[in-house]
Amino acid sequence: MPIKRIEVRERVMTRNDELAAAVRHTLEEAGVPAFNLVSSPGSGKTRLLEQTLADLGDELRMAVVTGDVQTSNDAERLARHTDRLVQAVVTNGACHLDARQVGEALAELDLGETDLLFIENVGNLVCPASWDLGEAEKVVLFSVTEGEDKPVKYPKMFEKASTAVITKTDLLPYVPFDLNRARRFLHETNPDLRVILVSALGGAGLEHWYDYLRSRVNVARAERRSLHTA
Amino acid sequence: MPIKRIEVRERVMTRNDELAAAVRHTLEEAGVPAFNLVSSPGSGKTRLLEQTLADLGDELRMAVVTGDVQTSNDAERLARHTDRLVQAVVTNGACHLDARQVGEALAELDLGETDLLFIENVGNLVCPASWDLGEAEKVVLFSVTEGEDKPVKYPKMFEKASTAVITKTDLLPYVPFDLNRARRFLHETNPDLRVILVSALGGAGLEHWYDYLRSRVNVARAERRSLHTA
Repeated sequence: MPIKRIEVRERVMTRNDELAAAVRHTLEEAGVPAFNLVSSPGSGKTRLLEQTLADLGDELRMAVVTGDVQTSNDAERLARHTDRLVQAVVTNGACHLDARQVGEALAELDLGETDLLFIENVGNLVCPASWDLGEAEKVVLFSVTEGEDKPVKYPKMFEKASTAVITKTDLLPYVPFDLNRARRFLHETNPDLRVILVSALGGAGLEHWYDYLRSRVNVARAERRSLHTA
Repeated sequence: MPIKRIEVRERVMTRNDELAAAVRHTLEEAGVPAFNLVSSPGSGKTRLLEQTLADLGDELRMAVVTGDVQTSNDAERLARHTDRLVQAVVTNGACHLDARQVGEALAELDLGETDLLFIENVGNLVCPASWDLGEAEKVVLFSVTEGEDKPVKYPKMFEKASTAVITKTDLLPYVPFDLNRARRFLHETNPDLRVILVSALGGAGLEHWYDYLRSRVNVARAERRSLHTA
């Protein structure tokens, strides 16, 4: 029985990887970088996206696909901050988005009118690590209220991410969170990880986050040009 | 393929339910109430347990089984606060504990010398809702830094819990958390839920949590007596 379980799981994962490759190809052709945002529930993914939509909305055309287990609460929150389409995916109990759901959401978007795509995954530090969505980069968030050892406790997620965003830094004076210890755990788990500190509430550090997004948009555009020239 | 996947999953779940029933029977025979603690990563399960072991250690004999995806960090933290056995289960990537793991951990404990058992589940608000561990009650934690809508976003977990513990209340002055809204969402999701507010750091509310534990220990002892008399 355990062997059979693994076989079925492997077939499902292989199919997901095929669909993710198709999503990635579509996004690269369009020159749209996609960010797969992962974190615990309550780390502040939606809050960071709200602020980003509000602050960069005039500069970049941002699309959002947001996944939730049962509600569309996050999609409704985000829709208040943009006049662009916010796609809600309800996973009906599943602890992650999959590539099929993202592919179907993409079909509703006009990628020619999109500069970047956010995929807000289900709040979970385990399952989404195993599911490729065709994104350019995984961005893992964790807040200063959560404890510094999240990277070593959930290493797969932090190994697969390009960028870690430490959120809610405005609460640092009130919580027993050692930033140096957090940095050391992040570096031990993934030496290549870009680390950005933000407070979406207070605004501190957001410029670093925005610069990172801008640079990724520029890279994706340049790569599309070379793709279409070649 | 999807149908087969469900069949395999159902067999795995059925086997888990059988093992959970055996665990529950063993615990009831011994008169030991078991609390399955579930939450997001970083909600403060380990911190609450540390404080509980320190404060009630002279009064109650508490055993702990703690599950983690990759590390034994939580077990090591807890072991500093008790001279009793703390059982670490590493789930190797799985997003929840299962009844087999708890059953094996129980075999290492002397239940005759135990007043209550804490099972600290993997930090996750989705997967652990589906896996019965043989516990007497599920206790779901969420912190005031996480947002009030966790109960409606992860309803299955809150429906299955007997008790919700709202943690880190010392941070209430610094976060946009509306306690009345949280209570309303909790009540909508599960009208029978017992709600306890605590700050493990500051100490506020801990007496309510301890009274709840004491009352459950007394009930379990009384039930064991009637079981053995009958």
